Amino acid sequence: MHTPGSNVSGYIVLMIVQIIFLVLFWLFVRYEKAALPAPIEAEDAGSANEHVSKYPQFQDIQVMIFIGFGFLMTFLRKYGYSATGYTLFMAALVVQWAVLMKGFLHMEGGKISLSLESIIDADIAAAVPLISMGALLGRTTPIQLLCMSIFEVALFAANEYLALNVLSICDCGGSITVHAFGAYFGLAVALMLRPASDQNDAGKHEGANYVSDIFAMIGTTFLWVYWPSFNSVLAEGSGGERAILNTFLSLAAATVTTFVVSALVSHENKLDMVHVQNSTLAGGVAVGTVCNLLLGAHGAVLIGIIAGTVSVLGYRYLTPWLTRNLRLHDTCGVHNLHGMPALISAIASAIVASMVTPDDYQSELQDIFPAMVGNNGTTTKIMGGLGRNASSQAGYQLFGIAVTLLIAIGGGVLAGAVMKYTSFRNLAKDEQHQDEQYWEVPAVENKEE
Amino acid sequence: MHTPGSNVSGYIVLMIVQIIFLVLFWLFVRYEKAALPAPIEAEDAGSANEHVSKYPQFQDIQVMIFIGFGFLMTFLRKYGYSATGYTLFMAALVVQWAVLMKGFLHMEGGKISLSLESIIDADIAAAVPLISMGALLGRTTPIQLLCMSIFEVALFAANEYLALNVLSICDCGGSITVHAFGAYFGLAVALMLRPASDQNDAGKHEGANYVSDIFAMIGTTFLWVYWPSFNSVLAEGSGGERAILNTFLSLAAATVTTFVVSALVSHENKLDMVHVQNSTLAGGVAVGTVCNLLLGAHGAVLIGIIAGTVSVLGYRYLTPWLTRNLRLHDTCGVHNLHGMPALISAIASAIVASMVTPDDYQSELQDIFPAMVGNNGTTTKIMGGLGRNASSQAGYQLFGIAVTLLIAIGGGVLAGAVMKYTSFRNLAKDEQHQDEQYWEVPAVENKEE
Amino acid sequence: MHTPGSNVSGYIVLMIVQIIFLVLFWLFVRYEKAALPAPIEAEDAGSANEHVSKYPQFQDIQVMIFIGFGFLMTFLRKYGYSATGYTLFMAALVVQWAVLMKGFLHMEGGKISLSLESIIDADIAAAVPLISMGALLGRTTPIQLLCMSIFEVALFAANEYLALNVLSICDCGGSITVHAFGAYFGLAVALMLRPASDQNDAGKHEGANYVSDIFAMIGTTFLWVYWPSFNSVLAEGSGGERAILNTFLSLAAATVTTFVVSALVSHENKLDMVHVQNSTLAGGVAVGTVCNLLLGAHGAVLIGIIAGTVSVLGYRYLTPWLTRNLRLHDTCGVHNLHGMPALISAIASAIVASMVTPDDYQSELQDIFPAMVGNNGTTTKIMGGLGRNASSQAGYQLFGIAVTLLIAIGGGVLAGAVMKYTSFRNLAKDEQHQDEQYWEVPAVENKEE
Repeated sequence: MHTPGSNVSGYIVLMIVQIIFLVLFWLFVRYEKAALPAPIEAEDAGSANEHVSKYPQFQDIQVMIFIGFGFLMTFLRKYGYSATGYTLFMAALVVQWAVLMKGFLHMEGGKISLSLESIIDADIAAAVPLISMGALLGRTTPIQLLCMSIFEVALFAANEYLALNVLSICDCGGSITVHAFGAYFGLAVALMLRPASDQNDAGKHEGANYVSDIFAMIGTTFLWVYWPSFNSVLAEGSGGERAILNTFLSLAAATVTTFVVSALVSHENKLDMVHVQNSTLAGGVAVGTVCNLLLGAHGAVLIGIIAGTVSVLGYRYLTPWLTRNLRLHDTCGVHNLHGMPALISAIASAIVASMVTPDDYQSELQDIFPAMVGNNGTTTKIMGGLGRNASSQAGYQLFGIAVTLLIAIGGGVLAGAVMKYTSFRNLAKDEQHQDEQYWEVPAVENKEE
Repeated sequence: MHTPGSNVSGYIVLMIVQIIFLVLFWLFVRYEKAALPAPIEAEDAGSANEHVSKYPQFQDIQVMIFIGFGFLMTFLRKYGYSATGYTLFMAALVVQWAVLMKGFLHMEGGKISLSLESIIDADIAAAVPLISMGALLGRTTPIQLLCMSIFEVALFAANEYLALNVLSICDCGGSITVHAFGAYFGLAVALMLRPASDQNDAGKHEGANYVSDIFAMIGTTFLWVYWPSFNSVLAEGSGGERAILNTFLSLAAATVTTFVVSALVSHENKLDMVHVQNSTLAGGVAVGTVCNLLLGAHGAVLIGIIAGTVSVLGYRYLTPWLTRNLRLHDTCGVHNLHGMPALISAIASAIVASMVTPDDYQSELQDIFPAMVGNNGTTTKIMGGLGRNASSQAGYQLFGIAVTLLIAIGGGVLAGAVMKYTSFRNLAKDEQHQDEQYWEVPAVENKEE
Repeated sequence: MHTPGSNVSGYIVLMIVQIIFLVLFWLFVRYEKAALPAPIEAEDAGSANEHVSKYPQFQDIQVMIFIGFGFLMTFLRKYGYSATGYTLFMAALVVQWAVLMKGFLHMEGGKISLSLESIIDADIAAAVPLISMGALLGRTTPIQLLCMSIFEVALFAANEYLALNVLSICDCGGSITVHAFGAYFGLAVALMLRPASDQNDAGKHEGANYVSDIFAMIGTTFLWVYWPSFNSVLAEGSGGERAILNTFLSLAAATVTTFVVSALVSHENKLDMVHVQNSTLAGGVAVGTVCNLLLGAHGAVLIGIIAGTVSVLGYRYLTPWLTRNLRLHDTCGVHNLHGMPALISAIASAIVASMVTPDDYQSELQDIFPAMVGNNGTTTKIMGGLGRNASSQAGYQLFGIAVTLLIAIGGGVLAGAVMKYTSFRNLAKDEQHQDEQYWEVPAVENKEE
């Protein structure tokens, strides 16, 4: 039965959160210097332009977050309002929170500097709970989702700081810190919210129809075309172009592989829209951590082939197995699109890092593997870097993914426990995967027409 | 009954208009100098590139106009061809007309200079009649709409010239000159075309279905993600980055607020897709006029919260009241998405302007408040500007919106009178809100499938 | 009857192709120099940025290829999975192949240089078989399409090399080398695959429904808004801005004309979605070859008016005639969107070229008409160019389109013959225009909801 009361208090809490954000912005956030008018004597319009040179890539990422994720999740035939609407709601809340959270970790003089980079970082952070939402799609209330996202983004910011600034791993496209974190956090929540063993069947509204599947392809294609922007936006120097090229090739190879493997393993050798909508993108995830490295075109293509294969096989065999045996439901299969491909990316990063010599990256070593600066091929430290050698860096890459998994799963278990056992309203089985619980839905549908 | 004759003559008139445009282009329009080949001795490829540095933002605005507006209006379940089609038709006609109209106001040596800026301005001008179309959606013929748009854009260009060049108000994102003008012009037309008092009920085809609502979300999300480009494209210097940041934050805050307020005021506390599709964007309108000013992040967030609240309350209470009491129908609720948020923006601009000191904007005062140049804190005029002081500028901002409302409403009443009382064909009540009157619609729908 | 066996072997062949690509990338492809880390002493971040200054236009083209083409073809009511899916599959395969093929034609030191330009060229190449696919839509298996595309892209690369590098014609937006080639190749294949004379009726599933027509408008509008990027991406110097302006104006004029002519010639003077979806874009094709020339705004508008008119009349009269008399089916009407407008563009290029004087293009003559460098108005050769004069260049333009048609039609006949008479599985009449043959399609559709 519908209990409006609990909704109302949840929404009011979210409004209070928004007002707290307002106060925090007022107290702590200031425009960065380049976004302030220059003194009259130092007029220089050019530098302002250069400062926002990443604006087109930012806009691509905006499309990925709001249209890409939103429409990718419209494949459920009775959950399209929620897919597009909650994506908008969650992303709008999270971007503000991410500006604050990531700002607190990099304050200067007690103030957070607001710049184009802040909102690029915020959009990337928004991807994290959206990935988790994919695992849970249709099985939570919006209040549960939104509260989860606030906690998750704080934990994400902390883990990212640990991985990049403390452990000094490379993760240009965020496969470790964003994709693996979001996927395994979401899966851990899903495990906590798993159904009783007598309710382990698919929800009666869980599934696509012809039109909802085509709506989902809007999401897929926009994610596909703009993924090079996501992976390259934080790359510096020539790494930006490599990130674009490697991501493009990996996606292309993963796509071809996805179609082939989908046809080979599916019922009657027919193509499966779930694979096409999702596994085609696995190449973008799997190349993420290493996208700015000297993979070579063949390296990128190889990663794409592996990712497409693993992802389709995951959808075909692993997900049903997890559902059957662990009652671990994963509505969008984020484990196959984000989880496993991110693990592939982490492993690839260890392999590539283990073969790095300082000469390879010349002036860019500082940006890409800062901890290796000062390693002149021996273990001697020079020039102020940590002088980490290649195998050591490879080890740190693996340590980075391990820590990320630990924190993500731990955080997800905690979040799931709170969502399940505290006063949050939970959805009953037959309330799942349909908009009607939380949305006004047109009633007369199909009748008068 | 269908009277094809009147259609034919209307379409022929539009073809003649197109041919007149051709002649005017031939007589008056020339490429700007930077779009002409440089003499051999002065070869300089770099400058040409810099000249089109706003091209990515132009493309974002193109998406807003053609996809954003077009799909936002597909929410009517039997009017999707018209929503997307007339948007394309109207925008294609208006952009040409706007290049000419705005060109005539800024001719040099009897010629209009054609540049990237011309077509950016033209796309912005196209937003004006598209906003008005939202108020009228489904209740006019395409011929009425197109003819209206030609008149409206000419009046818009004149009003914009008056507001920006004569009154010298600031309106970086166009909330006053574009959103308020388009909304109140459209509402004035709607008032003139209002139904007889015995036909004041909603049209029988007026309403969404499940799929049309999701199509509309394509429009919403693209408008959302690219709105920072719309607001910032005409900003100069560091104002560009502020416009991006402020717009982004205002949209995010308006979105969170929209969801919360929608749930709180709606039937059974369920979310309403009309609010989600529209009020989430009110933050972009409400921050428009002031987006390049030194609002601070908190200023932008505050404006977003106010705009989201006002917009949802407008949809919930004001629009039904206007329909009931004034027979003022507003199909898309442009009053709530464009009208009132634009008023908020104008008021905000007066408040912010009243607190400006010349030191705040340093070298950018000339761009942002040109009439205040020469005001050194007293009323003494120096340095060639008008030396307008802060309270005076605030007064001009309010005068600017007042004049705009007057011209828009006057123009709309005139246009509506012409559309109603001259030989234009008008739609009968039961012909409204459906494509069939003007489009070939597949007949067998749903049967054989 | 469904014969899965033949599918399986086809898919396996495509996987082998993907693996061959992997090997070729490994053997031959290397990052361009600017995508490699700079030596420490020569640190210069700026140059890397400038090198990828066309990245935003690349992304626009990505949207055109994957979303634009994909969704434009979703108008068939039972073929939306195939339209969006095969577009993704084909483009992902072709972009890799195009990097290799075009690379082999421009190798340096036995290696192919991989750069942003490579993948821009690859995306453009992907348009070619996608255009052909439009002619064949619904009447081939995916295996036939994919194999066709591999052959077609190789032939396209050869013809393009011939036209641009040997014949030295101008074709900035690719109307000759891309649009005419793709359209006539596809039509030639369609002619080879034409039905027996007792099966010449429209397929029973061939047609749109209300929702599929709106999906198709997503494709139309994205192609419309980003077409200036497609036409301008390879332009240099001030030609880039001219290409943007001319394409924009031509599209606008074609759109207005399309609506008018559609209403005038259609049944009951109602607008036809097929025209709106396609002929509005004819202006982009028809201005393609000449988009960077000094057309003047009126030249661009005139071309748009002609293209819109020809395209609508083609859909209304020519296509049915071809179907009836030659049994030449053209599902999307690519002859009207790409074929005839490309011929218009070629003719326009001859006219414009015939009037060129060396003074017109100053320092840009080298880029635009390299063969005319050294023509000082007489036939005397100076400065190392071929010294081709204006009428001669005009002749070459016409020769270029003639050769292209010959190669495209010859290649299409050959490809069609192979697809029809070898061991490829062909679709029977009643298997056409529906996804079910090759896709898992939700069965319960509409029932439980």
